[in-house]
Amino acid sequence: METAALRWQEGALLVLDQRRLPAEQAWLRCTTAEAVADAIRSMAVRGAPAIGLAAAYGMVLGAEDPGRAAELLAATRPTAANLRWALNRARDALRAPVAAGAGEEEEPDPARILLDHATRLHDEQLDADRRLAALGAELLEPGDRVLTHCNAGALATGGYGTAGGVLRVAWERGRLGSVWVDETRPLLQGARLTAWELGRLGIPYRLVADAGAGALMARGLVDRVVVGADRVAANGDVANKLGTYPLAVLAARHDIPFLVAAPVSTIDPATPDGAAIPIEERDAGELLGSTAPPGAHALNLAFDVTPAELVTAVVTEAGVLERPYGPAIGTLVAGRA
Amino acid sequence: METAALRWQEGALLVLDQRRLPAEQAWLRCTTAEAVADAIRSMAVRGAPAIGLAAAYGMVLGAEDPGRAAELLAATRPTAANLRWALNRARDALRAPVAAGAGEEEEPDPARILLDHATRLHDEQLDADRRLAALGAELLEPGDRVLTHCNAGALATGGYGTAGGVLRVAWERGRLGSVWVDETRPLLQGARLTAWELGRLGIPYRLVADAGAGALMARGLVDRVVVGADRVAANGDVANKLGTYPLAVLAARHDIPFLVAAPVSTIDPATPDGAAIPIEERDAGELLGSTAPPGAHALNLAFDVTPAELVTAVVTEAGVLERPYGPAIGTLVAGRA
Repeated sequence: METAALRWQEGALLVLDQRRLPAEQAWLRCTTAEAVADAIRSMAVRGAPAIGLAAAYGMVLGAEDPGRAAELLAATRPTAANLRWALNRARDALRAPVAAGAGEEEEPDPARILLDHATRLHDEQLDADRRLAALGAELLEPGDRVLTHCNAGALATGGYGTAGGVLRVAWERGRLGSVWVDETRPLLQGARLTAWELGRLGIPYRLVADAGAGALMARGLVDRVVVGADRVAANGDVANKLGTYPLAVLAARHDIPFLVAAPVSTIDPATPDGAAIPIEERDAGELLGSTAPPGAHALNLAFDVTPAELVTAVVTEAGVLERPYGPAIGTLVAGRA
Repeated sequence: METAALRWQEGALLVLDQRRLPAEQAWLRCTTAEAVADAIRSMAVRGAPAIGLAAAYGMVLGAEDPGRAAELLAATRPTAANLRWALNRARDALRAPVAAGAGEEEEPDPARILLDHATRLHDEQLDADRRLAALGAELLEPGDRVLTHCNAGALATGGYGTAGGVLRVAWERGRLGSVWVDETRPLLQGARLTAWELGRLGIPYRLVADAGAGALMARGLVDRVVVGADRVAANGDVANKLGTYPLAVLAARHDIPFLVAAPVSTIDPATPDGAAIPIEERDAGELLGSTAPPGAHALNLAFDVTPAELVTAVVTEAGVLERPYGPAIGTLVAGRA
């Protein structure tokens, strides 16, 4: 039942090609940092924690020139905090043993160090997901009809899922009635990935158009919104898949709690607020598809920013953060340092 | 450049099959009321004013049994006010000459009467569109970047367009900078129809995902929202394509005027408020398509309701209505009676 998005096998990173789900489960075998960068850029692997993890494995494959590999991997997608966080951690891991092993005979093997780092990150992520899922599930009430957007399940983390993990634990504990799944245009991560994951877990769900949340809330059919995050700024502003901000505005109007589930690695204390988060603009072709008339133009923003004031809670593995987020995040970061 | 959605030709109603636009311009030839009902139900013709007009022509084709034809046509789609309005007018037209011609020798020909009615309605609709478009254009400012949803252009009215007409006149008068077009899932009326119409008119536009309006507004890229309507209740609540309500909530948050363009025939004084408007639920398959996993369920609501408090103005051919809408609509209806 576990759906790993990523697997390390015989010196290569196997990436479950999420562009082809749910129709088929095809694996890409990446043997270079370039191939991993391509998989991230093309969204064969996606979800902030999962791309951080993929980058960590990509560093193993680019260990001969770690500086170049890190640059290549960092340039793939600009918004997710986890990508740069994982690359910084890999760099730190490479530096540490040089100091620790100073004076010893044996030259440390960078690939070995980076693989240890990536494996540790993978384990930590799974553990963080499980802990935040358990904390988040406590915020739900039996029978809750939860609306979610995009995909923040196991596929998005290479672990257990953030928002998806919350839904999973809540379901197991009898604290979830059903899930409304936004289809999430243009790449349909909701219709393709979240629907697939929920179906496999036996959690009842129904798909809705992204524009449908307002009608559902107005009819009293949504008890909570639970989403993941690509980056949480120091003040609690949240970048997540395009369409998250409208959900938060609607939830506020209808007095519906709006919960963000994200590991601590998604919180970037170096980003002061949402305005400082770089928002990726992807190829217009993803939106235009084959239906728009020839010559049509499109603006394909991948993310939007939800101001902290609209976020009821940020659920992390280190605890549930509430407003004001600035001090809560400051304390969290100080504890981590 | 005129794009008629409907044409009466040699005893048949020709319907431009909007499901196949913009890839091809194919015409359905309807020779029975049943065929017209099918065209409305399947959305080969869509848009509240256009389906009212199609129903009026459908009555001509069902003139042998007008009661049955009216029932059949009325049952196609529940939300648009214009459908029942046009059918009621057709019934009144049939009754009138019986009184006027009482005592005369010749039996009036129902098909002739109904065709006169439909043709008159068509002319009136084109005239109403042009007048409301001119009034609406005055509410825009030069350079305005207008967001619109779904399609309320010539294709939706069989005339000139409501929201689309406003954009067209504003463009001709130098009162429009560019248009943001919501793609409008699941049937993509924005990406397929509005984009096609604007392209033909030479009006600059860019497509965005339905979930994108929040990001655009937060960036200050939207000056006004202009949409059509399927039914306006007596208190000013507006039913329109699913996704309109979220736009109105976002527009209110960002202090962006939210304009509804609709002919008087879309206003239904017999519907007290939005809660009384029947909202069509269409086949889940429209949403599920070929991408969702087998066994997936979906809720496919076609419309939502925007409360009057969020509507800056309702632009009709009889004038621009403003809050409070109840008295404004009361006066309008009294003047029409």
